[in-house]
Amino acid sequence: MSYDEAKCSKRTGDKFAAINELAKRRGFFWSSFEIYGGTGGFVTYGPLGTRLKQNVETRIRELFVKKLGIFEMESSVITPSKVFEASGHVDHFKEPMVECQKCNTRFRADHLLEEKGVSSKEAEKMTLEEITQEIAIRNIVCPDCKGTFGKPQRYLTMFETTIGPYNGAVGYGRPEAAQNIFVEFNRLFNIAREKLPFGAIQIGHALRNEISPRQGLIRLREFTISDLEFFFDPEDQSCKFIKEVADEVLPILLGDTRLKECENVTLFTVREALDKKIILCEWQAFFMAMAKRLLVELGVPMEQQRFIEKLAWEKAHYSTQSFDQEVLVDRWGWVEVSGHAYRTDYDLTCHMKASGVDLRVYKEYPVPVEREEIVVKPVMTKFGPAFKGEASKVAVELAKIPVDKVIAEINKEGYIMIGNWQVLKEHIEISHQKTVERGTRFIPHVVEPSFGCDRLFYIALEYAFHVKDDRAILSFPRCITPIQVGIYPLMGKDGLDTKALELQKELTQAGFMTDYDETGSIGRRYARADEAGVALGITIDYDTLNDNTVTIRDRDSWQQVRVSIKELPQLLQEYFTGKINFESLGTLVQSK
Amino acid sequence: MSYDEAKCSKRTGDKFAAINELAKRRGFFWSSFEIYGGTGGFVTYGPLGTRLKQNVETRIRELFVKKLGIFEMESSVITPSKVFEASGHVDHFKEPMVECQKCNTRFRADHLLEEKGVSSKEAEKMTLEEITQEIAIRNIVCPDCKGTFGKPQRYLTMFETTIGPYNGAVGYGRPEAAQNIFVEFNRLFNIAREKLPFGAIQIGHALRNEISPRQGLIRLREFTISDLEFFFDPEDQSCKFIKEVADEVLPILLGDTRLKECENVTLFTVREALDKKIILCEWQAFFMAMAKRLLVELGVPMEQQRFIEKLAWEKAHYSTQSFDQEVLVDRWGWVEVSGHAYRTDYDLTCHMKASGVDLRVYKEYPVPVEREEIVVKPVMTKFGPAFKGEASKVAVELAKIPVDKVIAEINKEGYIMIGNWQVLKEHIEISHQKTVERGTRFIPHVVEPSFGCDRLFYIALEYAFHVKDDRAILSFPRCITPIQVGIYPLMGKDGLDTKALELQKELTQAGFMTDYDETGSIGRRYARADEAGVALGITIDYDTLNDNTVTIRDRDSWQQVRVSIKELPQLLQEYFTGKINFESLGTLVQSK
Repeated sequence: MSYDEAKCSKRTGDKFAAINELAKRRGFFWSSFEIYGGTGGFVTYGPLGTRLKQNVETRIRELFVKKLGIFEMESSVITPSKVFEASGHVDHFKEPMVECQKCNTRFRADHLLEEKGVSSKEAEKMTLEEITQEIAIRNIVCPDCKGTFGKPQRYLTMFETTIGPYNGAVGYGRPEAAQNIFVEFNRLFNIAREKLPFGAIQIGHALRNEISPRQGLIRLREFTISDLEFFFDPEDQSCKFIKEVADEVLPILLGDTRLKECENVTLFTVREALDKKIILCEWQAFFMAMAKRLLVELGVPMEQQRFIEKLAWEKAHYSTQSFDQEVLVDRWGWVEVSGHAYRTDYDLTCHMKASGVDLRVYKEYPVPVEREEIVVKPVMTKFGPAFKGEASKVAVELAKIPVDKVIAEINKEGYIMIGNWQVLKEHIEISHQKTVERGTRFIPHVVEPSFGCDRLFYIALEYAFHVKDDRAILSFPRCITPIQVGIYPLMGKDGLDTKALELQKELTQAGFMTDYDETGSIGRRYARADEAGVALGITIDYDTLNDNTVTIRDRDSWQQVRVSIKELPQLLQEYFTGKINFESLGTLVQSK
Repeated sequence: MSYDEAKCSKRTGDKFAAINELAKRRGFFWSSFEIYGGTGGFVTYGPLGTRLKQNVETRIRELFVKKLGIFEMESSVITPSKVFEASGHVDHFKEPMVECQKCNTRFRADHLLEEKGVSSKEAEKMTLEEITQEIAIRNIVCPDCKGTFGKPQRYLTMFETTIGPYNGAVGYGRPEAAQNIFVEFNRLFNIAREKLPFGAIQIGHALRNEISPRQGLIRLREFTISDLEFFFDPEDQSCKFIKEVADEVLPILLGDTRLKECENVTLFTVREALDKKIILCEWQAFFMAMAKRLLVELGVPMEQQRFIEKLAWEKAHYSTQSFDQEVLVDRWGWVEVSGHAYRTDYDLTCHMKASGVDLRVYKEYPVPVEREEIVVKPVMTKFGPAFKGEASKVAVELAKIPVDKVIAEINKEGYIMIGNWQVLKEHIEISHQKTVERGTRFIPHVVEPSFGCDRLFYIALEYAFHVKDDRAILSFPRCITPIQVGIYPLMGKDGLDTKALELQKELTQAGFMTDYDETGSIGRRYARADEAGVALGITIDYDTLNDNTVTIRDRDSWQQVRVSIKELPQLLQEYFTGKINFESLGTLVQSK
């Protein structure tokens, strides 16, 4: 499938509405606080949704924490203002807003411009002046009441609060999970036994006080973010896992291509992307490959993923290189699911400056470095008589002046003024001194892969969603399906129910997520289960009571096999870890 | 062990300080934002702590979600004010606060009184007047500067913020996770296919803007709560799982005992507690038994647990009966870890009133109920001539008056006044009408077990902590130990490291949490691992390369067994699910 085909094949109907309806009805998710009229940007995950979301988050943990040994940490959403002053959020985490002068509704100015044909690329870099002009030129009015807009202003999109009983103690809801990691760098480095490279990930709630949230799960005021900060020595950017992903193909929409107003994706293996300097840092390339694999695991084929290189004005000023991973969705087109930024030493430098705490790490040189230094010392036998009681004060002040300047001054003028005192050449001694430097202190660099978990959740749902015989089916990949096994007694009597409940207990204890359903015909139960994404359905019938075998039905193929209960736990284990396929579970009794 | 012995055996040293030091050094947890001088009440969980905390939360999920089928849900921390106005939090979620008039530091008034010998029971029910008097009588001054205090006031301990770009849209950080469940009741009931009983649990961050948080993990401003709301028909309180816990012994400190200033615990089986009406509701008794089991799983023997019955003035006014589950800890004595409240229909009633949305459920009567009703109808042929153009208005107003009142009035006076109109007996017709009621609508009752996850975490840590040969060891129960297997090549060379890394990969893929360590002597590595609570240590030595066997060392007994690598995954699986003990893993090679 080509990228153009992929794009066409995706955007055929309005899946967004169908999925939202199904999600609400079956308890995946819905808008929170409906009984109070709803509040935009907040969502509640129901039982199926909570489990699916946890499964998505578990995939992230498996990939990064369990397999790579990245540290996981958990910190608070509420954060003292100092942290976000230092990081630049208090000054810059703002969006342009306009207010209708008639109905007083407020809107994101850049979004209004985008709806009237301004590219998001353009809208993003506009000044408030330019926005004002553009609104006038394009004659943009309030979408609600057709009123005219006042002057745009920048609005801080962090939730503000007060920590403790003093009004001055401002706190913010964190708009991301990264700063918690940076401010704890020294502790984490210590736990890493003071060795680079190492990484830390935090998966947790974050808050952005959006002006007018829309787009369901795509733009929330409270959401779950997974921020991974990977720290390394900028002089040694080699990634020890790079070989494992060298042949992974990354679809990249290059910055140069974008500048030509073209959306053609170029395919590079990780190795090629690094060799051709498409991606500058090995660790960044590695995490992009992992991000691609994650999305494949969640059900998104490569052809419906791309990495878009951010242009100079789109990326943060500290970032050397940034890519957004995007996935094609039915209603919104390409949607960002992860960001990959090379953040350099920007964050640690900011926090070091603001806190006064040293966040550098020490590195020993392979070979100690000898340096020759020129040293200026006062000759105290001359200083005393010359400056009397002020001698030591003059010496201290002299020491504050750079050696170069002292020497230059004295060579030029024959003296140097320290306050009102004239220090002559004879008052000082200039000598050469050798020092041996065994190492140096430096601020580590950081590569950050950052995932929006609610978007991953929505995408898993959309890619699982399809319609067969006019019925909705959620064909989740095995590793994230919220209910693995449905258990159905043919009838809720004659001991079939007892047998079924026993089996459920056994499979639950063996670690499977199960569901028991005895209501309605088997056909109706299958249909209900398909809609909830239950991977396998096990039916207990009258034969079961005789020969201890059951029928297993596959959600996706609707095929059925007959299996002995005794072998079930082991077989299901192998099935859900991807070791065997459905047909290998037992004897085929029905293919549909 | 008796309760008195338990109490004595626990309170021997200051474990709190030792655990906090160890926790910080090894990355379990520490105070957040240290580089900015720290902000009281916020904590960061490091890699080991995050995993331990997740394991504790997983135990809760296993008990309630996986085994009992309780719904899990996830909603937002930020909540529109309407929700907490309806629930009564905005009016009542307040604590008494005093401010030092000299240094302006603010303190919890009740805590200051408690430190000067007032019982928490007394302090809790004091009015502001009484607090003022008590502070004067006991001559309580500022603990920081000895200044005198101003008048106490009630301080709202919710974090307040604004949702969206309008100043009027007040929001609060949720101080618990329960209200999210109540406001979504209709959706959840729908997912439960409109059948009672059912329950929903939410495990997530919550916020309380404490005036002066102390006590480390015991009192945080941001913490993790697990609120379970179980909905049932008050006319059918029978718990279908009650038999499974009937013989479970609950140690209860009865309200009557407490009133005698006595702390003696009485032991009841669940069955006895219900029969003697010590616990009034079966579901509440069931959840208390589950809570006891949970704490036993986390390492707390029954003798160091108790359920304390709340006295009339201690429990919320809506609660019929409340118990706090307490655990004995070294520094603080008895500490609450869970609350068990019978909340009746209070919360749903509040939200129904405030939102205007019907939150009742429909129940069919076993037999339809026939009712006879008296109906008053205007006789329109008489009404028209009598009241002319106002006839229909008079009819409408008449319908608003209770039938009883209309009849009584007419019988007494011969007429009834509707505004200025006199309605006579002949203007109306009084008839009897039969109706059949097939069912009724009612508001379900709720029992709530609510756990503080950070406290459970701290308690798991404290109960795992002990000292052997002057070394700290964390003897976690197998089901929550953050690292299950440590893997140690005898030397970091000669292929031992390669073999060890291979084994780590295999065990990780088999689902175990592993750690690899090749630094320092084996003895030092064991010591480091004991301190981190690593359950088993596997050493790869030169024999391993010949016969593919390894030594496994037990953290708690320091015994060692020799095992074939081939059998490892299966054996470890059985060990960590509690099916076999350490000695059964292999041939004993060292007992210490």
